[in-house]
Amino acid sequence: MTVEFVCVGTEILLGNIVNTNAAYLAEQCAMLGLSCYHQSVVGDNEERMEEVIRQAVSRSDIVILSGGLGPTRDDLTKEVTAKVFGMELVEDPHSRSRIEAYFQKSGRQITENNWKQAMVPKGAIVVDNDNGTAPGLILCKDGKRAVLLPGPPNELIPMFEKDIRPYLNQLEPEGIYSKMVKICGSGESKVESLITDLLEKQTNPTIAPYAKTGEVHLRITAKAAGEEKAEALMKPVIEELYRRFGKQIFTTEEEVTLEETVVSLLKEQHLTVTTAESCSGGLTAGRLLNVPGASEVYREGYITYSNEAKEKLLGVSHDTLMTCGAVSEETACQMAEGAAKAAGADLAVSVTGVAGPDGGTEEKPVGLVYIGCYNRGSVFARAFHFSGNRAKNREQAVAKALTMLREALI
Amino acid sequence: MTVEFVCVGTEILLGNIVNTNAAYLAEQCAMLGLSCYHQSVVGDNEERMEEVIRQAVSRSDIVILSGGLGPTRDDLTKEVTAKVFGMELVEDPHSRSRIEAYFQKSGRQITENNWKQAMVPKGAIVVDNDNGTAPGLILCKDGKRAVLLPGPPNELIPMFEKDIRPYLNQLEPEGIYSKMVKICGSGESKVESLITDLLEKQTNPTIAPYAKTGEVHLRITAKAAGEEKAEALMKPVIEELYRRFGKQIFTTEEEVTLEETVVSLLKEQHLTVTTAESCSGGLTAGRLLNVPGASEVYREGYITYSNEAKEKLLGVSHDTLMTCGAVSEETACQMAEGAAKAAGADLAVSVTGVAGPDGGTEEKPVGLVYIGCYNRGSVFARAFHFSGNRAKNREQAVAKALTMLREALI
Repeated sequence: MTVEFVCVGTEILLGNIVNTNAAYLAEQCAMLGLSCYHQSVVGDNEERMEEVIRQAVSRSDIVILSGGLGPTRDDLTKEVTAKVFGMELVEDPHSRSRIEAYFQKSGRQITENNWKQAMVPKGAIVVDNDNGTAPGLILCKDGKRAVLLPGPPNELIPMFEKDIRPYLNQLEPEGIYSKMVKICGSGESKVESLITDLLEKQTNPTIAPYAKTGEVHLRITAKAAGEEKAEALMKPVIEELYRRFGKQIFTTEEEVTLEETVVSLLKEQHLTVTTAESCSGGLTAGRLLNVPGASEVYREGYITYSNEAKEKLLGVSHDTLMTCGAVSEETACQMAEGAAKAAGADLAVSVTGVAGPDGGTEEKPVGLVYIGCYNRGSVFARAFHFSGNRAKNREQAVAKALTMLREALI
Repeated sequence: MTVEFVCVGTEILLGNIVNTNAAYLAEQCAMLGLSCYHQSVVGDNEERMEEVIRQAVSRSDIVILSGGLGPTRDDLTKEVTAKVFGMELVEDPHSRSRIEAYFQKSGRQITENNWKQAMVPKGAIVVDNDNGTAPGLILCKDGKRAVLLPGPPNELIPMFEKDIRPYLNQLEPEGIYSKMVKICGSGESKVESLITDLLEKQTNPTIAPYAKTGEVHLRITAKAAGEEKAEALMKPVIEELYRRFGKQIFTTEEEVTLEETVVSLLKEQHLTVTTAESCSGGLTAGRLLNVPGASEVYREGYITYSNEAKEKLLGVSHDTLMTCGAVSEETACQMAEGAAKAAGADLAVSVTGVAGPDGGTEEKPVGLVYIGCYNRGSVFARAFHFSGNRAKNREQAVAKALTMLREALI
């Protein structure tokens, strides 16, 4: 079955708010095995809204609409959808008393326009809204369905989880299941060139590559009657990817991040880590410490932006800084080793480079970053040449630092 | 003139990513005075993409597409748009050498499929991408325009600001000019309630509020023949906002960030700063050090995640940690003061809290964060109660830490 989303609201068209409802609904419906090929946003204009809804209903089995169910004259979603489905609006006594109770409870005065929200298309399923006045609605005619949800996420999400998801789940016999094969240490085009043959012959499961900073994600999606059958379809593809990318694959789970993998490996091996950052200025630590429970493996870290701080906190030699410079393999190694010793940690990663936009020279251009890795007695550093702006260079450096930490642990 | 957005990407349809590009483009185009009535999302499917693009071109003057310009076979936006505009693809030597240079600089191997990105629709305007390989493209035919932008926001935004915005701005005879009044220290509903009267009577210039983490931005947009005339229209409105929000306004410039304001104030006053971070784990330093030239005011900082590190690096008293706890006003004050002394800095900001999801108690729930501020001899801390997930709580803490630093400097 196909689904599409029509999000209604001038505030989305003007960029006042980010359309997080679409992302939420898309993820939920993908998980339910519904195929989604379109999303649209339209404003509170009757003619354009009708055109968009008619098109959506004509090309998809289920249209989920969000927004435009409020009490004001601007709110037209229900009226226009009812028109498209050829249903008249009638008052729903249950909704009327629910709205009455809602206002009583919140101690606010009901204004006349609030009763508009008790009007529903005749024959529609009415879904109670536990967090607001506008009820949700399910319209069904000639095998086509429209699901109308309130716009505020704090009303939409609970309503979807409580009533809409179970409703949609019983519509489809076959589900979609997916795994995310996440690769670090290779760029997107390199990864793709290594799986051209797999991409060409893909049917079920399918493979879709996504480029992320310092990572490439391959989404493997199978359509099958039940999770077990889907797993069986995906297994040989994932095994083949492991044969090609080996240890560069750090997870096959959607929600697992690179920093979580690093923290888990450290926990398993009862090791601790620290960070010594110059140009990345705390962002590597920031990512590691976004993992709940990172306190088991990380106690302290250092931001050493000046040469003096590198000497004082990490014991980098004054001579090295003078002869090789702060952005050098030697300094990166001494930073990592010094940090590990100062923190009493088993591992340490260091970042020193020219993030830009200023400070580049012919010998050491903007984008040159050295990352050092100390690992229980041994230390080395690698040079990277990034080519983004300051923020991007720092972000890429952090991704490489985490990748190197992970490599030290596998 | 009308504009609409077509965002291309299966990852948006599957809800893997939130479509922030649409919100960014919508805000920018609204500011340019372009009317937007539709947004769409479509996947990497040739037939459906063609249908969506044809419809968009038929109903709007300008169609801005994002995504699908990568080197892989999935990436079809350029091919399909060229087909709709009846243009053939030819190799652009300039883009070819730019891509070559990009790879050379980053020390990576070019794979064959990368050359696909040097192919452009014949007659299109080619827009250099300073942060990636895919060039932007502007196609124009029979008064209809398509603007193709790369999907990654760190490529799309700089390209839009540098080349696309000026291009769009010269299409209309009357220019649109805007200022961004950025406010810190008040929430969105507070700000809005203080300017209800201004919002109600707005015509030219208009005022549009945008809620950001820890900040509220008010976009003032004037339509006028020339920048001088626009400035004259905006001046009284901005003066009125200064009367209402005073020092909470930290800039009226679009591109100036809170951390830049803090670094500028420090530079002007010849002062230095340091950071001592527990739950925010380096992210405050990370934001401050994203400002080019921050080395003048920031030399070193501390990530003190464990109690031991708070004692060792910052001299927080063992007694305080035992009696008041790590998440307390007392600890926050001692962290800030200790950090300033250790780094020899004039100011210091400290962050200690319960970011979640675990570790909360009835007395100290998830979201409770203390931020300490040391300022040349005096120190104090404030408690905040955030209500997001771990990442959001940390982000909010960093915004408040920067706000408190700024307050200490004005």
